[in-house]
This record gives sequence, structure tokens and C-alpha cells, in this order.
Amino acid sequence: MALDSIKTPFGKRKDILGGSATFFSIAASFFDKVNIVAAVGEDFPEKYLAVLKGRGIGLGGLEIKKGAKTFRWSGEYNYDLNTAHTIATHLNVFKDFDPKVPTSLRKPKVLFLANIDPDLQLSVLKQVSRPKIVACDSMNYWIETKRKSLMRLLKEIDIFLLNDGEARLLTGETNLLKAAQKVLSYGPKAVIVKKGEHGVMYFSRTSHFISPAYLLETVRDPTGAGDTFAGGMIGYLSTVKDISNPAICRGIVYGSILASFTVEDFSIDRLAKISMSDIRRRYEHFKQITRF
Amino acid sequence: MALDSIKTPFGKRKDILGGSATFFSIAASFFDKVNIVAAVGEDFPEKYLAVLKGRGIGLGGLEIKKGAKTFRWSGEYNYDLNTAHTIATHLNVFKDFDPKVPTSLRKPKVLFLANIDPDLQLSVLKQVSRPKIVACDSMNYWIETKRKSLMRLLKEIDIFLLNDGEARLLTGETNLLKAAQKVLSYGPKAVIVKKGEHGVMYFSRTSHFISPAYLLETVRDPTGAGDTFAGGMIGYLSTVKDISNPAICRGIVYGSILASFTVEDFSIDRLAKISMSDIRRRYEHFKQITRF
Repeated sequence: MALDSIKTPFGKRKDILGGSATFFSIAASFFDKVNIVAAVGEDFPEKYLAVLKGRGIGLGGLEIKKGAKTFRWSGEYNYDLNTAHTIATHLNVFKDFDPKVPTSLRKPKVLFLANIDPDLQLSVLKQVSRPKIVACDSMNYWIETKRKSLMRLLKEIDIFLLNDGEARLLTGETNLLKAAQKVLSYGPKAVIVKKGEHGVMYFSRTSHFISPAYLLETVRDPTGAGDTFAGGMIGYLSTVKDISNPAICRGIVYGSILASFTVEDFSIDRLAKISMSDIRRRYEHFKQITRF
Repeated sequence: MALDSIKTPFGKRKDILGGSATFFSIAASFFDKVNIVAAVGEDFPEKYLAVLKGRGIGLGGLEIKKGAKTFRWSGEYNYDLNTAHTIATHLNVFKDFDPKVPTSLRKPKVLFLANIDPDLQLSVLKQVSRPKIVACDSMNYWIETKRKSLMRLLKEIDIFLLNDGEARLLTGETNLLKAAQKVLSYGPKAVIVKKGEHGVMYFSRTSHFISPAYLLETVRDPTGAGDTFAGGMIGYLSTVKDISNPAICRGIVYGSILASFTVEDFSIDRLAKISMSDIRRRYEHFKQITRF
């Protein structure tokens, strides 16, 4: 969970609600009950906690650490909204974060390990009884500095989400089909390659699926799109209790639709305002504009 | 029609068969009879003419100009195969090209005006009786130097094909949905925005369609992909004699499939070797990997 300061060609915001757990859990909460394991500092605004509570998101695993500050990220996007330029990262409470899963949360049916040091992702996984579905995300920084731990993690998970640049970096393959096949050989049953405004590709050992992104007239801030995507997809998979190919494909479309709302405004300003019928309407429209 | 010299990370070729008319007509010849109006120099290899003749492509409108050399383009691609870096362009026979449509070709049912000076595209259009379908392509150079002529042309055509960068340059809009809507206001009934490896978007006044590109393990040379796409799409539309939304969507998928063969090798080395059943197989596979 984070406080973000963001500048895009469409505006500027300071210390707004951000972070993987935030976007993921709000998106997933449209489909199923979600519990967060995370840490924030004493400075984390009460109003942001209220937003999450208001959506029924469990905060029993959220540590509010005394004397510490919340993780902060500041970044900027130019007209090419696909690329974030980091201005500053302040780890703060994450400097010595050691996630503890409360006893009440040690039997999850679905577990999403958001982007963080892969050793911490492994530690969380060890604290729980093996869920039916385990998914994880990562980033270029961990691929470059903690490759061994990441490779160990990949042996343990079902669904790995990464972006196209990360897939190339991790495998040394520029061709995405070859890169994805290599990632599958590291362990995951499903590899989801996110390409931002260019859509998503999904690879299993037997097939693949390619989906464009939902086309929007207004994209104000892409921050959180990837985690919203993951939340929509995994939230959907959690309700259908199924990670067969057709279920994952539908999950990917739900994830893309949820992400399409996130990017229409800063932080969760749009995402927190929509209803399930808004989601269903875009899902049906998405079908129309991709069928031939 | 052109002689291309190309370097990609996968090889290097000199004076190979290229040009819009080449790729377009070979792709379209899988669907319908095609006639070319173009010019080459005396140096144009007989073996290349034989390839076109062998596919039943009409060369009655091809001027082989005495004392002139064929148009030549040389370029290079890095691992980002989506971007061509031009090394040299030699206009040669195109320096004073003034296309003359032979009497026998003045009643086409479908006309594709490949990328060239928009005044020449307008001149060709004036020489024929109004076809049922008129499509055209252009490029950034004409948008920058001949905007007025291009705008005049756009009033007269049904289908305009351009890439994402050109759509942004032509309209001054970075958002592709807004850009496409603006292009539609210039005249065309259909606007096709090509995004290379990221697929194609189609916009009419009432709807849109988004299609990913067919995913390949081997991309050796992307030259000609756009014109092959146009040939496949318009060849298909020519046989169905229909530019309704569903027909254009199917045409776009055929275009993408044809282009997927072109990029697998240099020049027309792969495209000229395939059969209609190879095309149908990829078309069916494309359905599978995009349905949810």
C-alpha cells in the first residue's frame, strides 16, 4: 500500500491512495471477499482505510507501524502513457517489512503475491496452507537483483503475471512467444504477459490467448492498471473456483475491463465509483468489438 | 514496385522484390483477380515479373520505362521490428511518374491506391469510373508535405488505412479513439489503424473493432506487412462485394493472417509459397486464440 505523487499530461496529485494491494483488492472485491496482508505507517490517512473497509476488504493483516512512514512513490507520465518515469521511491515502512499472516488468514483458497522482494513472497506462501490458486507478480528490479529467489518462487505458483519488458528481461528472448514458453518451463502453469494499452497475452503449456485492451477516449493516469487487472482476473477466478483455459480467458477480459476504469482517473477515483453493472456493460461491449 | 535492400537481426538481403503493389497484389491474388498500375525501370529482374504473372496478376498497367531505374529503398530493423530505419531512398522511375490507367482497366470494381503522392492517387481515381470500393494508404511524408491534396483524396474514398503514428500526426490527437473519429470526419466511411505487432483497429461512424496481430515465433523481416494486410483485407472484401461492418472485420483478420506469413521471411519468400489452406488454418487458429 502506498501514497503516490503523480504527474500526467492530464493533471497532478500528491499523496494519493496507491499500491498493489489497494488496486488489487478493490478490483477483486467486486467478485469475492478479499483480505490484505500489508504494512503502512502512522501517517496513512484514516479516510483511505475507510474506503477499503467500505468495500468489505479485510484489514486484519494490515500492520500500521508506529513511528514509521508509509511507502511513497512519485512518478511522471508523458503522452506515451505506457511508460512511467520514477522520480522518487521512499521505502519507509517497507525497509524492514516482514509480513506476518494472521492465524485467521492461513487457509486462503486463493493467494495473490503482489510485487515485492521474492523472498517475502516465498515467506508468505510458507505461512499458509497451499491455496487452490497462487498467483504472483514481480518487476525488473527483482529479476535483476534477486533472480534466484524469484526462480524458486516460480516453481511454487500457478499463475505468473509480468509485463512484456519483464518477460524479455527474465528470459533473454525478444520474441514474446518464445519468452513465454521459457517462463512456463520455470514452473508456472499459466503466464500472463501484460502489454498495457496493447492488451494481454496468456500462455499455458497447451494453448495461448491474445486480448486487446479496452479502448478508451480518456486515459488520465495508468498507475495501478496492472494490479487492477490482476485483481479483476483473480477475483473472477476465485468465484468460479477454476483455472481452466476458458475461465482464465474470461478472467483476463474481466481484468482488462476493471483496469479500463482505473486508468480513466487518478488513484481509485473512478474504480471506487463503479458498480457491477458498469463492469458487465463493458464486458458485453468488449465481446462485440472483438468478435468477427 | 521496388527493389529493397534490407538488414534485420536475422539476415541481410540486396535488391529483393518489394513495393506496395507487389505485397498487396500477391496477398489479394489469393482471393480475386488483381491488376497492377505501376512503373519499374529496365533493370527490374524478369524473374520478379514471372512471380507476379505466375500468380495471375495482370501487368497490363505496368510501365517498364526505358533508360530508367527501378525505385529502391534500403533500410534496417533492430530487435524492435516495429520500426524501420531508412538508410536510403532512390526515387528513380518515380521521380516523374504519372500513372496512366489502360482503357481495359478503367472500370475496376475495387481500387486500392497504394502509398504515393496523393495528387497521383487522385489522378488515378479520376481516370476510372467510380468503383464500388475505393481504399487508400498514405504515409507521414505526405501528411507533412501534401496535406491539402491528401484531405481532398480522403473525401473521395471509402476505406483509409494508416498506422497509429500517422493517425496521431494527421489529427494532432494522441488518443487513438479521438484520432480515428477525427479521421472519419474527413470523409472515409472506414478507418483502419495499423499498429504492427500490436494489431489493428477499425473504426466506422457507428462502431469499432479491435484485433490483435497473429502471434509468431519467427519474425525475420516486417517489410511489406502493411501492404500485405491491405491486400488480404481488400482481396477478401472484393470477393464478398460488401463493406458492411462484419465483412470488414473478417477482412481485417484475413489481412492479419496474410501479413503474418509475409513477416516470417524476407520479401515474398514465405508469402509466395503458401496456399489457401494455410491461410484458412491460421484463420481458424486465430478464432480460437481470441475467443473467450
